[in-house]
Amino acid sequence: MEGEKKAAAAMAEEVVEQKTKEVAAAGDVSLKELSKKLNDFAKERDWEQYHSPRNLLLAMIAEVGELSELFMWKGEVRKGLADWDEAEKEHLGEELSDVLLYLIRLSDMCGVDLGDAATRKIVKNAVKYPAPSKEGA
Amino acid sequence: MEGEKKAAAAMAEEVVEQKTKEVAAAGDVSLKELSKKLNDFAKERDWEQYHSPRNLLLAMIAEVGELSELFMWKGEVRKGLADWDEAEKEHLGEELSDVLLYLIRLSDMCGVDLGDAATRKIVKNAVKYPAPSKEGA
Amino acid sequence: MEGEKKAAAAMAEEVVEQKTKEVAAAGDVSLKELSKKLNDFAKERDWEQYHSPRNLLLAMIAEVGELSELFMWKGEVRKGLADWDEAEKEHLGEELSDVLLYLIRLSDMCGVDLGDAATRKIVKNAVKYPAPSKEGA
Amino acid sequence: MEGEKKAAAAMAEEVVEQKTKEVAAAGDVSLKELSKKLNDFAKERDWEQYHSPRNLLLAMIAEVGELSELFMWKGEVRKGLADWDEAEKEHLGEELSDVLLYLIRLSDMCGVDLGDAATRKIVKNAVKYPAPSKEGA
Repeated sequence: MEGEKKAAAAMAEEVVEQKTKEVAAAGDVSLKELSKKLNDFAKERDWEQYHSPRNLLLAMIAEVGELSELFMWKGEVRKGLADWDEAEKEHLGEELSDVLLYLIRLSDMCGVDLGDAATRKIVKNAVKYPAPSKEGA
Repeated sequence: MEGEKKAAAAMAEEVVEQKTKEVAAAGDVSLKELSKKLNDFAKERDWEQYHSPRNLLLAMIAEVGELSELFMWKGEVRKGLADWDEAEKEHLGEELSDVLLYLIRLSDMCGVDLGDAATRKIVKNAVKYPAPSKEGA
Repeated sequence: MEGEKKAAAAMAEEVVEQKTKEVAAAGDVSLKELSKKLNDFAKERDWEQYHSPRNLLLAMIAEVGELSELFMWKGEVRKGLADWDEAEKEHLGEELSDVLLYLIRLSDMCGVDLGDAATRKIVKNAVKYPAPSKEGA
Repeated sequence: MEGEKKAAAAMAEEVVEQKTKEVAAAGDVSLKELSKKLNDFAKERDWEQYHSPRNLLLAMIAEVGELSELFMWKGEVRKGLADWDEAEKEHLGEELSDVLLYLIRLSDMCGVDLGDAATRKIVKNAVKYPAPSKEGA
């Protein structure tokens, strides 16, 4: 039984690795693609009933807490995380993803087009903080 | 156990199919595009010096605080935010965007490919929580 | 008009100073004293209706965000904040207080005796992480 | 081995109960008392080296995340938590405490007298938001 479980876990892991590589090879992922995946995921599990805006906001904050946990006792951390081991980096990727996925889902449940809003916000920021090289132009 | 394996394979398979079907529509923004915009933005303003991982993490948390502020005195909020006015919705879109932009920038400064990590995480979640309808297949 | 505003601000400042001195003279403040003050404060303004647990939790998170804002672009900060100016330290004291006050209020609205719970938690931590000097005793 | 572990757990539980009763008997706990306990705790374990302001801030945020986790899938929660079971309430008391303890420690490491700052903040809030009954007096 224990052996079977391990074999299944290993197989599942292999499937994840392989399929993820295929997906990555297919190119750059968009916010709408992730949004659609999350929507299908919730629908298939009948989890839409739990996805009220404040539930999702608190779930996202819980993930922000887990993300902070990875950085809390480290003092200043250098770009690129040269001294983090592979397991820590893998863990970090998962926590960053968890925040992203709840953020996308929260946006969807609020009727906000996150990709559009983010694009608008970058433009707004560029107007608010003009680049020095362009100021002198 | 056999059912779980099949569910894992089926779910992963679907991820790939979906990816193949979904050719990015015009206007649909990708994580890499936003990442590139943020990188250019920081470079043009010589702000890269401030973008250490923990600085960006705390900046993101400050934005999570501003996002929470929009929801704090409202009691339960219904999906779609039918009773929010346009100015509030606009403001919400900006706060959601601010969280996203710092999250993307944080990922970049940590050397994490966020789109890839998020795609992997969805596949992993699908293996961890098989959809009921597929369990019986 | 400007003069009136300044006079009002000065008067308010004076009241704050005076009251604070009175309170400080009374000595070390306890969690129950703060809790009582917050309870009176809410009752007098008829604000109890807004103080549901999740509203207060999100209000506290909004304050955690404002606290993070003070630390976000600073890189590592040294104990004692030797290089912060007085205005920044004053601001920091206010943000730390805001988190505390919502935390106390949240505990009260959940029926949790925070002082008692915190005392228990310290004892529990001491059992979980024995002090090295005591381990060898 | 299993028996030993259980005996140790039971003994630890007993110590916690006993110490907590002693402390509770001493009455209402103050912020300065908790601060002193935390200071002794860190000193005895040589943990002061890890207690930089930003490390403690991130540790506090991690605890805010764990606190949010308790509320995330519940929809609106009623005051007093009538429908939470005892284990959940106990857990809640621990998470609220963890936030408090890091908040106190963070204040101390920043040289802020939290009790004094919180008292001032309440007075300041009272000036900013006068109670209606007093306005008409």
